[in-house]
Amino acid sequence: MSIRDEVRKMKEDAPFLAASPAAVRDRALKLIQEKLSAHADRIFAANADDLKAADEGGVSPAVKKRLKFDGGKLSDCLAGIDQLLKLPDPLQKVTLSRELDEGLTLTRITCPIGVIGVIFEARPDALIQISSLCIKSGNCAVLKGGKETKYTNRILFSLIHEAVVEAGIPGNCYIQAEQHSEIDELLACHNEVDLLIPRGSNAFVQHIMDNTKIPVMGHADGICHIYVDRDADQEMAIPVIVDAKTQYTAACNAVETLLVHREIAEEFLPKLQKELQKNGVRLRGTAEVCGIISAEPLDPEEYVEYLDLIASVKLVGGVDEAVEHINRFGSHHTDSILTENDETAERFLQMVDSAGVYRNCSTRFADGFRYGFGAEVGISTGKIHARGPVGLEGLVTYKYRLIGDGHIVGDYASGRKAFHFRDLTS
Amino acid sequence: MSIRDEVRKMKEDAPFLAASPAAVRDRALKLIQEKLSAHADRIFAANADDLKAADEGGVSPAVKKRLKFDGGKLSDCLAGIDQLLKLPDPLQKVTLSRELDEGLTLTRITCPIGVIGVIFEARPDALIQISSLCIKSGNCAVLKGGKETKYTNRILFSLIHEAVVEAGIPGNCYIQAEQHSEIDELLACHNEVDLLIPRGSNAFVQHIMDNTKIPVMGHADGICHIYVDRDADQEMAIPVIVDAKTQYTAACNAVETLLVHREIAEEFLPKLQKELQKNGVRLRGTAEVCGIISAEPLDPEEYVEYLDLIASVKLVGGVDEAVEHINRFGSHHTDSILTENDETAERFLQMVDSAGVYRNCSTRFADGFRYGFGAEVGISTGKIHARGPVGLEGLVTYKYRLIGDGHIVGDYASGRKAFHFRDLTS
Repeated sequence: MSIRDEVRKMKEDAPFLAASPAAVRDRALKLIQEKLSAHADRIFAANADDLKAADEGGVSPAVKKRLKFDGGKLSDCLAGIDQLLKLPDPLQKVTLSRELDEGLTLTRITCPIGVIGVIFEARPDALIQISSLCIKSGNCAVLKGGKETKYTNRILFSLIHEAVVEAGIPGNCYIQAEQHSEIDELLACHNEVDLLIPRGSNAFVQHIMDNTKIPVMGHADGICHIYVDRDADQEMAIPVIVDAKTQYTAACNAVETLLVHREIAEEFLPKLQKELQKNGVRLRGTAEVCGIISAEPLDPEEYVEYLDLIASVKLVGGVDEAVEHINRFGSHHTDSILTENDETAERFLQMVDSAGVYRNCSTRFADGFRYGFGAEVGISTGKIHARGPVGLEGLVTYKYRLIGDGHIVGDYASGRKAFHFRDLTS
Repeated sequence: MSIRDEVRKMKEDAPFLAASPAAVRDRALKLIQEKLSAHADRIFAANADDLKAADEGGVSPAVKKRLKFDGGKLSDCLAGIDQLLKLPDPLQKVTLSRELDEGLTLTRITCPIGVIGVIFEARPDALIQISSLCIKSGNCAVLKGGKETKYTNRILFSLIHEAVVEAGIPGNCYIQAEQHSEIDELLACHNEVDLLIPRGSNAFVQHIMDNTKIPVMGHADGICHIYVDRDADQEMAIPVIVDAKTQYTAACNAVETLLVHREIAEEFLPKLQKELQKNGVRLRGTAEVCGIISAEPLDPEEYVEYLDLIASVKLVGGVDEAVEHINRFGSHHTDSILTENDETAERFLQMVDSAGVYRNCSTRFADGFRYGFGAEVGISTGKIHARGPVGLEGLVTYKYRLIGDGHIVGDYASGRKAFHFRDLTS
């Protein structure tokens, strides 16, 4: 069956999942935990096949590391589902309740988005996390993982699908796409798919955004900044920068550009460089920076996402110049100010137009798990709908219910009746 | 100056507007009220010029009616601003506050979307409403009204701009586009413009959606349904249907398709037709419907938005078939069930995938003013971000603030520290 035919059936069944009680969705999550535990050996055997194919295909060590699915990763996944089970149902929450007039009551109630397409990297744990989030939030999903995880994902998905059906959710609500060609098919299904969440390289996410009419949630770039203010605690600044740059360089929330207040540059830059060098980090600096420390030259208009042990360094005259730089050259992901000055910090937090605005901590905290969301389906640098790490709340929308007793607009347009707008406590 | 240059400057000034106190934005609204009142004669004179041009250009009476701006419309606009002034500030609201660990606090705070482009029909009151909503919500705006309102909009915008600047908001935050060619320029500004809100014909909105990378909020179609259940109060049903169809046929929330339970069709359809005929409404029916009443034949796959005194009629076997029809042929705008049966109603309200799901009332209530939002900038049939009538809440997003004291992720990754996720009451 084609992807389009499958998503059509999914769309038809989506309202049944939307109306399912929380107990049914939680039951599916519990069954997933049980099945993953019971069939751990089969999963690890399938994963060994993927790893063997990776070796034969000459896959990079970084990809292999993400690909490997062992007991430790399984128990992290089970713990993640535990966290989701503890979270309250994100559906059927009344977020507005208002009597418009006698006998005419408006309520706004959360509901699932509907059908979501998630295209993600070659990580078996990602399949489990994303499926779990979609189940808990009552969304149908088309799941497309990296081809390198083919065997592992096949067994994981079949267990998840079994669990879902056993819990009483229609089987059409979740499908796995295995072929890369199916992505293009999916991009054309704008009448059936409500949201796409692509994860992966910038070029890939940009390709998705440019080739579909379906709303896309995610981020193409992660150019994060740390601004070291004149009033920074310099002893605190150095480990924060080292963490943000080196703790996991391939992450979108790793810092790429350091902005340093001109007045402290001569004192601070040599200390910073010494510590970063110890951690294998090379610096690229503006001409002014290269006058203080020996750094590689930086093209003043070229501030990029390195995803590597390299950072750009530039001097600024104060917080306003830092904000201007970040809003112009950043990617609206996560940016941090290091300062002991409350007024300067407040200005930065207010004026920087990013999903995460931090003070005195590492940009690496930008993550659904670290925010206490249980897991994340991705990080959004868009400002429409969900921003930052996207957990359950980002996977729901709402609808307005209006309950009357034969109420007609003509009575209000003619002045025979008038609205009184009385908010009800729910 | 080109639109692109203007929106670049707007983008730079947007953080200043975002950080402005509520008092500044409310002051701008009060100054708008004062200036509109003080210069009413100039506004009416400009409107007379537009009306004269409309007569010469052979504009339709419906357009002329919307174009006319008189004392009544002015006082409605002033009252609308009064309502907005009474609403609380939608910005700087803390919607989540959580201590992740000792000294590391996460807060989620509402903030404006940024730069919004609104393209709207030839109605001077729309310019005032949309500007007021953007000012109250701290958003910059590019405003493009219908060309037929050129003279009126020019004076209205100059007064609004004066008020904004006098209140202390940067003048770059609001511009008016007057040329149709500027719309295409605006569509290309995806680095500067955060959201587009087009209003107007389906074809126009679809054109916008197909030709920009900027997120678009709005609706292309408004195919609304009323389902008359077996357990409907038939006496109540008829005036509700007459209102939904005839109270304002050109509105997107007017009903277009009537679904009637097969078991009551023989009794109900003749009564319905009689009342609708009195109101000038023609019916198009399926073969089955034409077997009961004399109606024009309806192609079973052709359920369209008439925006006229015509309605489609189809029989269904019950609520599930009604839901299936609505989810398949509708536009996810607003749909109403008429029934006295609570269980049937609940099923409909749960399963219909529309922004508005109503019981025992007219679809024409789908409107920001009637929901008590003060005004609306448009109605969204999308499910991402805002759904239904979009007032102040739909014009804000949020950002996450994380405040630490030198916190680094390495400590948590290594297990030296652990998150405790304690929600704080704010």
